[in-house]
Amino acid sequence: MYSVAILGASGYAGGELIRFVDNHPGFEVSFLGAHRSAGETLGAVHPQLSGGDRALEAFDLERVSETDLVFMALPHGASGEPAMQLAGSGSKIVDLGSDFRLDTPERYLEAYGQDHPYPEELGKWVYGIPELFRDSIAPSDRVAVPGCYPTSAIIPLVPLIDARLIETRGIVVDSMSGVSGAGRGVSGSLQYGAIDESVKAYSMLTHRHRPEMEQTLDMFGTAPTSVLFTPHLVPMQRGLLSTIYASAATDTSLESLTGAFDEQYVDALFVKRSEAPPETRWVVGSNNLMVSIHLDERTSTVVIVSAIDNLVKGAAGQAVQSANLMFGFGESTGLPSEGWMP
Amino acid sequence: MYSVAILGASGYAGGELIRFVDNHPGFEVSFLGAHRSAGETLGAVHPQLSGGDRALEAFDLERVSETDLVFMALPHGASGEPAMQLAGSGSKIVDLGSDFRLDTPERYLEAYGQDHPYPEELGKWVYGIPELFRDSIAPSDRVAVPGCYPTSAIIPLVPLIDARLIETRGIVVDSMSGVSGAGRGVSGSLQYGAIDESVKAYSMLTHRHRPEMEQTLDMFGTAPTSVLFTPHLVPMQRGLLSTIYASAATDTSLESLTGAFDEQYVDALFVKRSEAPPETRWVVGSNNLMVSIHLDERTSTVVIVSAIDNLVKGAAGQAVQSANLMFGFGESTGLPSEGWMP
Amino acid sequence: MYSVAILGASGYAGGELIRFVDNHPGFEVSFLGAHRSAGETLGAVHPQLSGGDRALEAFDLERVSETDLVFMALPHGASGEPAMQLAGSGSKIVDLGSDFRLDTPERYLEAYGQDHPYPEELGKWVYGIPELFRDSIAPSDRVAVPGCYPTSAIIPLVPLIDARLIETRGIVVDSMSGVSGAGRGVSGSLQYGAIDESVKAYSMLTHRHRPEMEQTLDMFGTAPTSVLFTPHLVPMQRGLLSTIYASAATDTSLESLTGAFDEQYVDALFVKRSEAPPETRWVVGSNNLMVSIHLDERTSTVVIVSAIDNLVKGAAGQAVQSANLMFGFGESTGLPSEGWMP
Amino acid sequence: MYSVAILGASGYAGGELIRFVDNHPGFEVSFLGAHRSAGETLGAVHPQLSGGDRALEAFDLERVSETDLVFMALPHGASGEPAMQLAGSGSKIVDLGSDFRLDTPERYLEAYGQDHPYPEELGKWVYGIPELFRDSIAPSDRVAVPGCYPTSAIIPLVPLIDARLIETRGIVVDSMSGVSGAGRGVSGSLQYGAIDESVKAYSMLTHRHRPEMEQTLDMFGTAPTSVLFTPHLVPMQRGLLSTIYASAATDTSLESLTGAFDEQYVDALFVKRSEAPPETRWVVGSNNLMVSIHLDERTSTVVIVSAIDNLVKGAAGQAVQSANLMFGFGESTGLPSEGWMP
Repeated sequence: MYSVAILGASGYAGGELIRFVDNHPGFEVSFLGAHRSAGETLGAVHPQLSGGDRALEAFDLERVSETDLVFMALPHGASGEPAMQLAGSGSKIVDLGSDFRLDTPERYLEAYGQDHPYPEELGKWVYGIPELFRDSIAPSDRVAVPGCYPTSAIIPLVPLIDARLIETRGIVVDSMSGVSGAGRGVSGSLQYGAIDESVKAYSMLTHRHRPEMEQTLDMFGTAPTSVLFTPHLVPMQRGLLSTIYASAATDTSLESLTGAFDEQYVDALFVKRSEAPPETRWVVGSNNLMVSIHLDERTSTVVIVSAIDNLVKGAAGQAVQSANLMFGFGESTGLPSEGWMP
Repeated sequence: MYSVAILGASGYAGGELIRFVDNHPGFEVSFLGAHRSAGETLGAVHPQLSGGDRALEAFDLERVSETDLVFMALPHGASGEPAMQLAGSGSKIVDLGSDFRLDTPERYLEAYGQDHPYPEELGKWVYGIPELFRDSIAPSDRVAVPGCYPTSAIIPLVPLIDARLIETRGIVVDSMSGVSGAGRGVSGSLQYGAIDESVKAYSMLTHRHRPEMEQTLDMFGTAPTSVLFTPHLVPMQRGLLSTIYASAATDTSLESLTGAFDEQYVDALFVKRSEAPPETRWVVGSNNLMVSIHLDERTSTVVIVSAIDNLVKGAAGQAVQSANLMFGFGESTGLPSEGWMP
Repeated sequence: MYSVAILGASGYAGGELIRFVDNHPGFEVSFLGAHRSAGETLGAVHPQLSGGDRALEAFDLERVSETDLVFMALPHGASGEPAMQLAGSGSKIVDLGSDFRLDTPERYLEAYGQDHPYPEELGKWVYGIPELFRDSIAPSDRVAVPGCYPTSAIIPLVPLIDARLIETRGIVVDSMSGVSGAGRGVSGSLQYGAIDESVKAYSMLTHRHRPEMEQTLDMFGTAPTSVLFTPHLVPMQRGLLSTIYASAATDTSLESLTGAFDEQYVDALFVKRSEAPPETRWVVGSNNLMVSIHLDERTSTVVIVSAIDNLVKGAAGQAVQSANLMFGFGESTGLPSEGWMP
Repeated sequence: MYSVAILGASGYAGGELIRFVDNHPGFEVSFLGAHRSAGETLGAVHPQLSGGDRALEAFDLERVSETDLVFMALPHGASGEPAMQLAGSGSKIVDLGSDFRLDTPERYLEAYGQDHPYPEELGKWVYGIPELFRDSIAPSDRVAVPGCYPTSAIIPLVPLIDARLIETRGIVVDSMSGVSGAGRGVSGSLQYGAIDESVKAYSMLTHRHRPEMEQTLDMFGTAPTSVLFTPHLVPMQRGLLSTIYASAATDTSLESLTGAFDEQYVDALFVKRSEAPPETRWVVGSNNLMVSIHLDERTSTVVIVSAIDNLVKGAAGQAVQSANLMFGFGESTGLPSEGWMP
């Protein structure tokens, strides 16, 4: 059994990490780290989990450094310092945060509006989409798991860009996310009265996940990618749906699109294509990503609908999937391949 | 007091029509028509309304033809016959259905996949957006109220097309609607278990409201319009949000966009622009439409976010607004200019 | 037109008060008071309302004292000081808070666990249920509007107690409230993630509304009342349903129960009895209270189901209803007698 | 591996049964039976599950009779015939329906208003609450799993009745259920528009689960039990909360209540007591039942709050728990002891 530390155990992604590790045959929780909730029991913050008398503790890097695997599920900006302090320990790190996803200081500055505190680290971390970067993830000891929105967009777009079936400029990613994507922090804009029975767009034109999408898509195309990304918040707990619009290349047919997709993901256990546009309830609770692909011949536009559970394939599930590769387990070990409905 | 018949009184739009007419100083309900619910009391189908002992009756065209005003809130295809039978009566008709919105048999065939039963009627009905067609609605006795999705898209797009600030080809309208937009019919896809905690796209590339949008936008542009429309269903009762993408024309600035919009609607009581993207809860319960306009300079794309209550500005409210013009009342008479929140 | 000050304008009840006053033929808003939101525009906190450029202002008691009518919709404990400062001004006060509802210092201490700061005031305020205390409210200039839970329980229980049809000891009031009943303050327990898709009981055995119920019921019975009250929070914005259990007196029949109820409320515009248990959506948006009455002969228990909109009949609507009496308007003036559904 | 047939595979409980069996180390699905959905693939009705190309088939009793274990998750009245046809086969049956839960023809007639078609069967089936009837379930080949409401009420009440701490007459069970408890059938009363943002009581005084509660509680008390049961429907998918009121016996203390409960369930893996009233989100997704116990000394009333996931501990989970006992597996094998939140 490999020992696991989870930093940020009190959040929603932290709770799912604990649940997956508790049910994993090769990992076991040995340290639960929290900031504000340090000193509380697990049962007080996650009453849905077993072992409610386990303690949430302040970060004790010495103890963390003795574990085999560290999951960090921390707010933006909070992963840097513990990651640096763990350098030199034997612990492998899977970071669910956004600190180490981008590849250059310039891109980081553009996305987050400030300089990266450890710019020399950028580029050392592997971007944790197992379906695309399996061979890099397996030998790595530093993996940065993508954001939920980029996961939903990159996986379906890559095979189409790779096969030159769509234009890389002016891709529109229009997404809706359940509220758990905003984390468990307390704010007026996340009160029930502000969310229930309403939808809204937010972070118009400036959401931080856009550079992350472009960076990865750029790896597969011949020309630079530009994405226009509009996230929306919808009144549900979990689930993320992206509707993606891209100009079709000349001669692109529906068959070429679905063919390229199917070929890319023939061995991907968690990636599924359906004819009908997927509903988020089809994937909630599982690590699956479901996609439908459409071609609007009137406007020569490829339309993709992509659905994930933002806390599973969009966060904790994808993190465990990467960790499985890093420790030699089967990629789906301990992960739910079946969701719950309703 | 003008007497009013409401055909389709048992539906959601029918209920809102009754509520608005009950509170209107110049209209009064004199006939409530229903198909399946004929013979029931109003209280049995709309327990939220007063006068619950009023009867829902089978369509009695003779009695209907004695009223001054007929609202028809019927399923697609059901307005044609009663409308034709009322020809020659003095009753003015406001149809909330889709039978008489399109202007040519060709466009109708494209949208609905079948020939129109009364093709000679097409073009005789005025399209009921008061903010754009006030002068045609006032003298008319036949008004076809737009669908909810077209209302949300046409009102913000018209001034930008009219001022040549956006390209008319390849406009993307990506919308989310509350479930009441699907009406009150019973189906497995509208069960609570199929809707709650999930979102989905539907009618991919083929939704019937798209030709309606193009028809009206074509009236204001120099080149034909093409729209790619993707509706989504989200777990809430009311509210409709459209996020609209259009290529900016050369030299278009944010100021030119907001300026054109503000100038067009300077006198429109129910159309409001906000800097922040509007949330649907800001308009639910009122006849307001709220819009924000954005310009993405990276991709030269204009992004518009537009919010309405699908049952009010998207249906019953806009119908009463048109009727007010037809009968010489102030345009906002009897209509809610303030919504409820939460 | 009578001028109106609304203190606590930024809350949910405050927003409804503004909406009702804006639509009232005899009242007009002349001062909007707020604590934390002072300095903001109305549009910033209530974007659903008209006149969004109206200012929210810090309490200026001098200006408030020049108005004819003051609504106070403040957190518990915050009404006392402004109420005392307005003594001697000509302003009539309708308080939606709980500071002046109880009749004795002892009962206040029992309910709130501390001494009342102005004990001599207790007993001077009229309890604002127009259906029961119309004659006292009309000439009063100090009215304390009941809480939402007591409103739902007292109105149906009074005629049954008054007619000696139920025992007054051991009445169980088991209620569910929509989340707006908890107000608009920000807390972790009111976040969307803590409310959606879950229900819970709270304030077990100790909720502050219980003494309020007993105080009023005691006025109608021959023996002291004891109530066991369990409130639950359910995932919806508005609406409150109470299911009430009381032991039937000897010889009580269903006919005697419904007869007593109907007789008491024969002239009450907003109180309605139905055979089927009312659903909250039947009353949401209106000032109505709907009740069904049942008799379980197996256990000799009377069961009552009672539904209101907690923000309307349970707060702002009942406040305006009382104010109508105080200023000589018809009791239902400016109040919605029809709700919205869905 | 034991082979398993699931009859009623297309419903919500059927879907959960498939999920649990797919993840069970000792059971495997070998037949999926459905009525209306026969001929469809599993993926068409349960897109959240794996193996979507598995067929749903019309009941083929010959093939079913070759399986080791048959789960029946059928509408009321539909279990009788297949159960009788399987008599003599070696298949063990776990019925999630209500056909075989009651012990006498008289009680069945009272509950369901008609005679039982196979009265000689009543009393042969073991009532499937493992925490109470472990020793009878293990050797049985016919188990009738309780309804969701009875499960939530019986488990907490039994130790208190058994220890003579509460009166057995006039117990009030006031419950709220998520909508999945009503099954997956299509009806107007289960449409999103009829459920969302509303609560209601239903089956006032006459719900069929009441005799089931009394039958089992009678086994533990000295005097006959009488229960008054009021179920409510609340706008959420899963979760069931019961708030239970019973008169305290003389000398009952809070300590005696919690002591009796804790002693009864010291070895019950899925039954947990908390000081605070449990929220349904604490148990949704798991097979847990959580309880809090309170004593109101003012009215000498014991109040219990009890929470389960109606589809897991209230249906499919409890069925698998019983099957585990019948086949010699550990009671919790293949069952989730940790829920999801949010």
